[in-house]
Amino acid sequence: MPNIFSSIENIRFNIFELHKIQDILNSEYYQDHDEESLDMVLSSVMDVAEKDMYPVFREMDEKPAYYEDGKVIIHPAVDKMLKIATDNGWLGSHFDYDDGGSRVPMMLSGAASYIMACANNNVGGYIGLTAGAANLIITFGTQELKDLYVPKMLSGDWTGTMALTEPQAGSSLSDITTKAIPQEDGSYKIVGQKIFISGGDGPNVDNIIHLTLARIEGAPAGTKGISLFVVPKNRISADGSLEDNDVITAGDFQKMGQKGYSTVHLSYGEKNNCHGWMVGVENRGLAHMFQMMNGARLDVGLTAAGVATAAYYHSLQYAKERPQGRKLSKDGTKDVSQQQTTIINHPDVRRMLLLQKSVIEGAFSLITECYKLEDQERILEGEAKEEAHLLLELLTPMAKTYPAEMGQVAITNGLQIYGGYGFCTEFPLQQYYRDIRIMSLYEGTTGIQSLDLLGRKVTMQNGRAMQILTQRISETMAASASYDDLKPYAAKLQAKLEMVQEVMTYLLPFAMKGDYEKYLADASIFMQMASNIVIAWQWLKMGVAAKEILLTKSKVGLASSFYESKIETMKYYYKYELPKVDACKEILTNPEDVTLSKSAEANILFS
Amino acid sequence: MPNIFSSIENIRFNIFELHKIQDILNSEYYQDHDEESLDMVLSSVMDVAEKDMYPVFREMDEKPAYYEDGKVIIHPAVDKMLKIATDNGWLGSHFDYDDGGSRVPMMLSGAASYIMACANNNVGGYIGLTAGAANLIITFGTQELKDLYVPKMLSGDWTGTMALTEPQAGSSLSDITTKAIPQEDGSYKIVGQKIFISGGDGPNVDNIIHLTLARIEGAPAGTKGISLFVVPKNRISADGSLEDNDVITAGDFQKMGQKGYSTVHLSYGEKNNCHGWMVGVENRGLAHMFQMMNGARLDVGLTAAGVATAAYYHSLQYAKERPQGRKLSKDGTKDVSQQQTTIINHPDVRRMLLLQKSVIEGAFSLITECYKLEDQERILEGEAKEEAHLLLELLTPMAKTYPAEMGQVAITNGLQIYGGYGFCTEFPLQQYYRDIRIMSLYEGTTGIQSLDLLGRKVTMQNGRAMQILTQRISETMAASASYDDLKPYAAKLQAKLEMVQEVMTYLLPFAMKGDYEKYLADASIFMQMASNIVIAWQWLKMGVAAKEILLTKSKVGLASSFYESKIETMKYYYKYELPKVDACKEILTNPEDVTLSKSAEANILFS
Repeated sequence: MPNIFSSIENIRFNIFELHKIQDILNSEYYQDHDEESLDMVLSSVMDVAEKDMYPVFREMDEKPAYYEDGKVIIHPAVDKMLKIATDNGWLGSHFDYDDGGSRVPMMLSGAASYIMACANNNVGGYIGLTAGAANLIITFGTQELKDLYVPKMLSGDWTGTMALTEPQAGSSLSDITTKAIPQEDGSYKIVGQKIFISGGDGPNVDNIIHLTLARIEGAPAGTKGISLFVVPKNRISADGSLEDNDVITAGDFQKMGQKGYSTVHLSYGEKNNCHGWMVGVENRGLAHMFQMMNGARLDVGLTAAGVATAAYYHSLQYAKERPQGRKLSKDGTKDVSQQQTTIINHPDVRRMLLLQKSVIEGAFSLITECYKLEDQERILEGEAKEEAHLLLELLTPMAKTYPAEMGQVAITNGLQIYGGYGFCTEFPLQQYYRDIRIMSLYEGTTGIQSLDLLGRKVTMQNGRAMQILTQRISETMAASASYDDLKPYAAKLQAKLEMVQEVMTYLLPFAMKGDYEKYLADASIFMQMASNIVIAWQWLKMGVAAKEILLTKSKVGLASSFYESKIETMKYYYKYELPKVDACKEILTNPEDVTLSKSAEANILFS
Repeated sequence: MPNIFSSIENIRFNIFELHKIQDILNSEYYQDHDEESLDMVLSSVMDVAEKDMYPVFREMDEKPAYYEDGKVIIHPAVDKMLKIATDNGWLGSHFDYDDGGSRVPMMLSGAASYIMACANNNVGGYIGLTAGAANLIITFGTQELKDLYVPKMLSGDWTGTMALTEPQAGSSLSDITTKAIPQEDGSYKIVGQKIFISGGDGPNVDNIIHLTLARIEGAPAGTKGISLFVVPKNRISADGSLEDNDVITAGDFQKMGQKGYSTVHLSYGEKNNCHGWMVGVENRGLAHMFQMMNGARLDVGLTAAGVATAAYYHSLQYAKERPQGRKLSKDGTKDVSQQQTTIINHPDVRRMLLLQKSVIEGAFSLITECYKLEDQERILEGEAKEEAHLLLELLTPMAKTYPAEMGQVAITNGLQIYGGYGFCTEFPLQQYYRDIRIMSLYEGTTGIQSLDLLGRKVTMQNGRAMQILTQRISETMAASASYDDLKPYAAKLQAKLEMVQEVMTYLLPFAMKGDYEKYLADASIFMQMASNIVIAWQWLKMGVAAKEILLTKSKVGLASSFYESKIETMKYYYKYELPKVDACKEILTNPEDVTLSKSAEANILFS
């Protein structure tokens, strides 16, 4: 069966030719890896994705995770995948040697996660969260905590989660109420409710380690009184055996999509016998958790891109095989004596395919850019390190949101290509359509990401991250100047960048005079505008890389049509997607208030 | 339980104050009705919607229609609703007296269908298709066919369907191959396969009448060789009894949404014993069928608007009740000592609510406009009649597509307001999200509607329909000139209308020189542009009506806040939605070809 969920060629292009992993492999830290060895990792992951993950994708939807007798039952494929991932050392492979990893660059481990997300988006989360939870303990935990938990997690004997959300608080973490009561032995008793805990129960493992936010008795209100705790499902007795830690699985949320992935309601301390151990500094828990959240945000963007990628390749295959209709003849009629054409030849179908392709390849390129920044942050020093850090901070909310939001648009277009079959459960597109819908809710909704982008990232250090981004975009435009036929696209991008400047010139005075409600009211529109431009940057970058290779030779051995296709898709993006920036600018600089609380009372607005 | 799926107030406003049904009730044809009697019909329908339709909405999703032992089993609520609808004379109420109807204006019967779609979109189709099928027999059938079929259909003893689609043809009706073989008794033997037949089986009735397209042996190829047949599931013997007519229910398509509505695969004449009777003129079947298709297109638009309406009122209620987060204080921080606010006070939530409100009320207004044109076509004479006809032809593809496409956008925003709960099956939004996805596929996909709009409707009679539309929009702009605060919106609309002229000036020469592929390549973008402007027209019209009433008095007794809310929502639309027209213009006038078959071979475009 041919792989119709992803393209190893496109991944190789991204890692080796576009974002040039060699740049970071040249460092001392990554010296044990070379392109060849990393490419073999990609091949192994793809192999497993094809043989073990994709074949159970539909089954995991048809037989969802469910709650029974106090626990969540999930598909056994998850246990198998956990074993494969740990046997191969993929879980935490990007950790340092001392921490049980093998210093694999994030660029590469990100690509591996992307492959898994393309093949089956129900599975990767269990692995990714376990790695993220272990990493949090490694970064902020004591040596004792590290020794107790990390090895078992990396071996896959135990899994990990992040436990933030509570029923009454939702996105507003300042309102969480889970309590942590100090005990004489240095532990804390934990009491509270956590909902929407991904992977919170299900895997057939000995223990699940919940990295949990809670409030120590007497802590300040709001986010400044939140601490981080390791709360295992089973705690480790003095003799090393496991005993029940009073973390109850209260239920599994039944969902419209991603049905194979458990989403759990946890109840801590119903018998007043749940213990947690603090990680890091008291009341700094939310700041610590941001390490895991930022990782999870990129993971969500990656997963959204993966779901949309799989949908794209399915609809592409369908469009190539499905005969229907005819090309128009000169007088605008169809000659019915002619053979039917396959639908890939209809301009509107091509438009929908190119839309998908521009979204998924643009998104994956942006995410790879982010992982490269993460790797660079590790190996660079001084200002260069700081620049990598700031740019990553700025790009993260976009790398999470663009794939989540535009991935939905891509998939609904892929479904449309199937016609009525797209709506039928016998065909795959409807599953992708349902699955991806969670991505703009996970790990901070689009609204939250947009507030983060405009309210914090754009303004931090007097806009320095935006300056760095502009600088990087200018570098790509300068590189494109070597190719006459790329120049018009660079000019378009320049014009749109200037619109962002106009918008900021209009908006910033509101922030400066303290009218933050007005400044932030249309943060979601700003997100659309900024991420559209950032993806246009990625496409220009792809255009430049493609041009370079067409004049030389592909080092990963791809045909010239692959690179010509990149340039064609760039053209699609600049013709069809980039113009939306103008509409965003028009909205963002329109002085009329219609959504602000002061503009009209709710009972008038919504009569 | 309060009605959280629709607003009778908004429907009254549309029918009585905005689109002024009195204009048509003044005619001789509709003289037996007055506003009071029609309002009572609306109230009765709403009553049934609340008591009998909405309460089973979720259940019909959880227990989908299914195929067993050669038939489709559906929820018994459908039978109950059929009985209620026929007992009340709602089925075919818009027919003339002689045909078993009561001359209810389409404006009113459309509003009744809309209420049902809001309450439960699984049910209305069975009623609507039966009426549509009966109407087709009335219009084109012989007296004998009318006498045999119509009374039983209007009484609900039998139901009706439209059977067009075949597996190998899809949207391309010119390729249908179902055969009709003339018999000596004047009937035809029918042999073939029809798929995606909505309501094709399921209701607990004695007979189902399939209005079926087939090709008489020896007929010309393509659409010019298609005829229309009545093909009953059971044919009527000489003695009046029913005997099996060899129409086999081969299966029921399992779908992602609208699971309570059967979608059937029919197999005709497997035992060579299926008879059909021709309706209308040989080889004119597709033209005849367009009567039913046009009706069904408005029905789909209406249903899409209904689904999105129900989603809106649910998310509005949630936003009013859900406490989360706080308003920003002057320094941009949140004061956690303050009580949480309900999320309706967050600008981004308001934006998502206003988006929904602007879409659903704009869509319902456009559809009501179309039904009024249908009524006017009946009662007017000469040029006025022709104008109503042409404008209806032009607006129909938009009235089908805008609610289907933008309804999806509205619902995904409604789901977002629920946060993670929106993705959970325990909450209603995910069902609406799944249900509405079929609407842009039904009755001609968005691609097909767009080709119809740009390829036929815009150009017919040298663009006369477009001239009429422009004239009507100008009349609304003229009316708005009485109100200073509406003038800026009229000016914006004028500017966008001029963009359409620019686009046509660019595009038409391609059609004139025979390059139809180029002319039509971006028909879907033209659809977005044109329908955005048409909805802006509806919003200006609503603004004018609201202003008028605020200066006088609401005849349907609504509070002034209702009308102020209309004006606020108009402002939302002009600020946030209308600017997208500019992007469409930029795309449509960009000379670069990226989707045409001549621009690049498929193997390059999609490498």
